[in-house]
Amino acid sequence: MRKGKHTWTFENKPVIIGSYGIAGPKEGKGPLKEYYDEVLRSDLFGEKTYEKAECKMQFTAIEKAIKKSGKQKEEIDAMFAGDLLNQIVSSAFSARELEIPYLGLYNACSTFAEGLLIASALIANGTLNDATCSTSSHYSTAERQYRYPLELGTQMTPTAQWTVTGAGCVVLSSKGEGVKIEGFTIGRVVDYDVTDTNNMGAAMAPAAAYTLEDHLKETGRTPDYYDMILTGDLGKFGVEMMNKLLLGDGIDVRNIHNDCGMMVFDEKQNVRMGGSGAGCSSLVFSTYVMSKLLDGSIKRLLFMPTGALMSKDSSLQGESIPAIAHAISIEGL
Amino acid sequence: MRKGKHTWTFENKPVIIGSYGIAGPKEGKGPLKEYYDEVLRSDLFGEKTYEKAECKMQFTAIEKAIKKSGKQKEEIDAMFAGDLLNQIVSSAFSARELEIPYLGLYNACSTFAEGLLIASALIANGTLNDATCSTSSHYSTAERQYRYPLELGTQMTPTAQWTVTGAGCVVLSSKGEGVKIEGFTIGRVVDYDVTDTNNMGAAMAPAAAYTLEDHLKETGRTPDYYDMILTGDLGKFGVEMMNKLLLGDGIDVRNIHNDCGMMVFDEKQNVRMGGSGAGCSSLVFSTYVMSKLLDGSIKRLLFMPTGALMSKDSSLQGESIPAIAHAISIEGL
Repeated sequence: MRKGKHTWTFENKPVIIGSYGIAGPKEGKGPLKEYYDEVLRSDLFGEKTYEKAECKMQFTAIEKAIKKSGKQKEEIDAMFAGDLLNQIVSSAFSARELEIPYLGLYNACSTFAEGLLIASALIANGTLNDATCSTSSHYSTAERQYRYPLELGTQMTPTAQWTVTGAGCVVLSSKGEGVKIEGFTIGRVVDYDVTDTNNMGAAMAPAAAYTLEDHLKETGRTPDYYDMILTGDLGKFGVEMMNKLLLGDGIDVRNIHNDCGMMVFDEKQNVRMGGSGAGCSSLVFSTYVMSKLLDGSIKRLLFMPTGALMSKDSSLQGESIPAIAHAISIEGL
Repeated sequence: MRKGKHTWTFENKPVIIGSYGIAGPKEGKGPLKEYYDEVLRSDLFGEKTYEKAECKMQFTAIEKAIKKSGKQKEEIDAMFAGDLLNQIVSSAFSARELEIPYLGLYNACSTFAEGLLIASALIANGTLNDATCSTSSHYSTAERQYRYPLELGTQMTPTAQWTVTGAGCVVLSSKGEGVKIEGFTIGRVVDYDVTDTNNMGAAMAPAAAYTLEDHLKETGRTPDYYDMILTGDLGKFGVEMMNKLLLGDGIDVRNIHNDCGMMVFDEKQNVRMGGSGAGCSSLVFSTYVMSKLLDGSIKRLLFMPTGALMSKDSSLQGESIPAIAHAISIEGL
């Protein structure tokens, strides 16, 4: 049901019937380690390259999530997947192995939310019955693609974030009991002219603030409607900036807000502002957050992964960093 | 309405209420030149880099398509866009300028079909009212990203294709008169172990054959149900290979099949197997094909853009080229 320009809510709420999250070794030493379905001992995952390892991570997350859902992969109508590698090859090569009809998505680190909203809209309105949504990222593939060869041993700048090595997948279904998708707000691209690619939080914070304000305005809800408002990977600085922007408009979410990028690592793990990457929000959501939605400790969640839409080339050509955030309203048990 | 594992048809058929195609200088000398809405005099389009030029092309195609549809951009619920640049920046930066809720897609050169099927499904099931679908590609950005610096003056191999400099956009609506989307078949990823990145046609042909066979089987239609079956950018070799595969299964589409990549250039233009690129199918569809659908010379079209899902890195790491094709059934006046 249309709620406003950017927001929809569902009468037939899609159900999350399965989820699986796989984490890298460093993530496996972090605060959420007990919640991960699987932790890699080596971030090469038995492969010859980090790119092949990332692909294997996303493939594993999708395959195991389907298994946990009790479905056969032949029953999945479509897989919605994306990642940060050029031409989202982790997703494409996963789709090749799975032979599920494939729809590749790219909204940077908000891709998991993009998948959730498109898939749930297609399920809620009766087009699809079952679909998977997955994303992945890998510290070692992201570093060498977006920044510098690992061998250089480059120092992180103070506002930088550590790309999460991880993958997460959920299986959405038109039938079943469990955690439900209640609605969504589609984000638009916001650019505050931030050009420092080592400060993604600053680039993404305005997008998060805009989308949250659109969502609250169009649903007529106040922040306390939700037990938790969870952004994807704003990191410490981005969260501060988002709260500054929101408070300027009289919106205070500080007591119910958290950020996957800040939850996934411990400050002692030397990750500067926190974790980031398309796999950050999908890993944390598919494991820790799902467990809290299932045990009743989160009844209403607004899940808002954020994405920075630049490329290495666009930054080298002097472009600022456009960002986006989609909001997904989720109901726990 | 569900027709089979991969195929859906619509009761409320989305209408194409506007379309716009913008072509590069070389394309503007090709056989379809009269049909293009706009032809660039320089492929830099007044910008400092080819990447910025490609972005401006896609932005222009979207903006002008909306204008031709008689809508205001504020009325567009969402824009579905993709391109071949890393992190699909042409689409992201277009979305930044347009401020329309943005859903980025990537299925390589079949991205335009991916956009058409997701957008039309969301419109047909009542979620969205109006949406744009657009893609772009640019010879000079693709060459330097996927192959070699232009300055090297590398020779094309015999089976290579020439990336189309162009962008196309259509505006889909739940209301109105005109060309209608009747249904679609979602493609799955097919890999025949082709590793020659200068022979995309060979990599994509099996995907086209699989999707066409799925579509015919699940709809119970024979090829002659359609006036035209139009693939995206298989090129001369890819079309031969697709026909060989189809004939092996007793399916002959040769008399009604054409390929945007073969239509967009003249053999004398020295493009080897023909045109390619995410902008190839969207440019040809949004201009020439739309005019034929509107003047009644094509009543039933099966539009099947194909995509090769590799990246430069995946090929360098010894991976073969996975491919995909989505089929969109379209009704002319």
